[in-house]
Amino acid sequence: MATTNASLDSLAVGIDIGGTGTKFGIVDRNGNVLFSSEISTKKHLQVESFIDDLYDNLIVLINKAGGLGRIKGIGVGAPNGNFYTGTIEYAPNLPWKGIIPLAKMIEDKFQQPVTLTNDANAAAIGEMMYGAAQGMKDFIMITLGTGVGSGIVANGQLIYGHDGFAGELGHTIVIPDGRLHPGTGKKGSLESYASATGVTNTAIEVLAKSTEPSLLREVPKDDMNSKAVFEAAIQGDKLALEIFEYTGKILGLALANAVMFSSPEAIILFGGLTKAGDLILKPTRDHMEANLIQIFQNKVKILVSHLKESDAAILGASALVWEK
Amino acid sequence: MATTNASLDSLAVGIDIGGTGTKFGIVDRNGNVLFSSEISTKKHLQVESFIDDLYDNLIVLINKAGGLGRIKGIGVGAPNGNFYTGTIEYAPNLPWKGIIPLAKMIEDKFQQPVTLTNDANAAAIGEMMYGAAQGMKDFIMITLGTGVGSGIVANGQLIYGHDGFAGELGHTIVIPDGRLHPGTGKKGSLESYASATGVTNTAIEVLAKSTEPSLLREVPKDDMNSKAVFEAAIQGDKLALEIFEYTGKILGLALANAVMFSSPEAIILFGGLTKAGDLILKPTRDHMEANLIQIFQNKVKILVSHLKESDAAILGASALVWEK
Repeated sequence: MATTNASLDSLAVGIDIGGTGTKFGIVDRNGNVLFSSEISTKKHLQVESFIDDLYDNLIVLINKAGGLGRIKGIGVGAPNGNFYTGTIEYAPNLPWKGIIPLAKMIEDKFQQPVTLTNDANAAAIGEMMYGAAQGMKDFIMITLGTGVGSGIVANGQLIYGHDGFAGELGHTIVIPDGRLHPGTGKKGSLESYASATGVTNTAIEVLAKSTEPSLLREVPKDDMNSKAVFEAAIQGDKLALEIFEYTGKILGLALANAVMFSSPEAIILFGGLTKAGDLILKPTRDHMEANLIQIFQNKVKILVSHLKESDAAILGASALVWEK
Repeated sequence: MATTNASLDSLAVGIDIGGTGTKFGIVDRNGNVLFSSEISTKKHLQVESFIDDLYDNLIVLINKAGGLGRIKGIGVGAPNGNFYTGTIEYAPNLPWKGIIPLAKMIEDKFQQPVTLTNDANAAAIGEMMYGAAQGMKDFIMITLGTGVGSGIVANGQLIYGHDGFAGELGHTIVIPDGRLHPGTGKKGSLESYASATGVTNTAIEVLAKSTEPSLLREVPKDDMNSKAVFEAAIQGDKLALEIFEYTGKILGLALANAVMFSSPEAIILFGGLTKAGDLILKPTRDHMEANLIQIFQNKVKILVSHLKESDAAILGASALVWEK
């Protein structure tokens, strides 16, 4: 029986490259992740061996989905991924240094068109297509994970900037001469405070400065993380609540600045830190509003992504294929 | 002799409304300001009397240029001007309070289509059409005058944002809990430091804190302004140079943050403060670069607008007509 062309290329591959692992999957037009799997990123010190491992594992899923003929293209989200050049450039959290022509390497291996962008941009496109930003023309996506990423959509288009690197809100300076970011050497960036790592460092600082009793004093320093702070906070621990308040104060300030820049309809938050719910969202909202001038006040929604976390990264990357 | 339709509407009116005065002129397609004039803004406590005065003065120029039949439309740049609604909303430096339907009022009076936006957005369109940003798809315009305004262009389009108010970089917070902005009640905004008013306040602060001899000590406090600081600086006055260094440090930080947001090809500076040349530009460039992460370094041009200052505001506003 003849199949139509539409069904022949009606699937997209999404690949999300993280510092630790790389997730990938096969996604249909409606945003259903049909098959997905994961390989290690960090064990591949050479990008060539990474590509080989990716191929071996992904081709199994592609064959399950009906073979390469069904695939319209491959979308890749990666830290410091450049939409224009298809390269990953100087990504501090990846094992491969310098400028890596990743899109070209995947294209050569799979003989499929590849679109690459940074992971937060991919997440923004995913939200626009399947998530909280459906129907929005102006919004900002912020990923609060190990680091802080962002994707900015204005006039219905992702902002890539002149060189393809736009949307690095995590590296904007919110506290001049503030906390050192060991990865960039810069001081006082949003990522130094509002990432999981930032919350951990705030916890260590707050505990050292204060003599207040706290559940967090029972956590060994090496085990301190944002989850431990969350667990203490929901039990009403004063210092843990202070840590979230402080994080929200800085995040709220950064969001106010972003709002006064591009005046979005909403800011969509995604990632581990959002699991703390109102513990982080309330101070963030309050401090955002407090820093906005009148014309922007009480207008901008702060939303939490409702995409399933395990699928969201793959969905976002795959959405690049349809976007194109 | 018959005239073609093209020549019948080949002119645009540009109106630039400032806190003190309003400039207006008739502009041709090539950016030549054929006729121009100015009325007071601040003496009109009622917007109705302002519109009447504007009409009486502008219609004279329109008639000189061949009458209303030659005019394709009217573009207006105004503080807190909203592109979507055609209103001016809560502009702290204008005599008219609340929300003013200015585009509609001018439209009714002149029976011509009116496009309104904020003054810095208008300036950005002017630069894109006639100035330093010709051919650029991604740039940021910053006006350093009594206040600090901005217009952001990405993907070849001006960013208006969800509500038409995008591009208020002057109100972003660069020094948390820093200097109070009396107009907004917010602390530490870029405008509090990098405007003419900001430089004046820095001068007063620096003189009070230091015991260093300075030419500026001869300037009465009420006469202190950025021009006096400039004149002292070109004579090598140490404190005056320090004032520009400090201003450039804060402006450079704000520009770095803007670059990491939208990754423009260039930042175009316009306004009184740019007359200080390298006194302000050098520290601004140095501190911008120092705050950028590696992927953005040594890429972004900082340019000074080369449009004739007396024409630039009118040109920018008139450009809205062709843009539309």
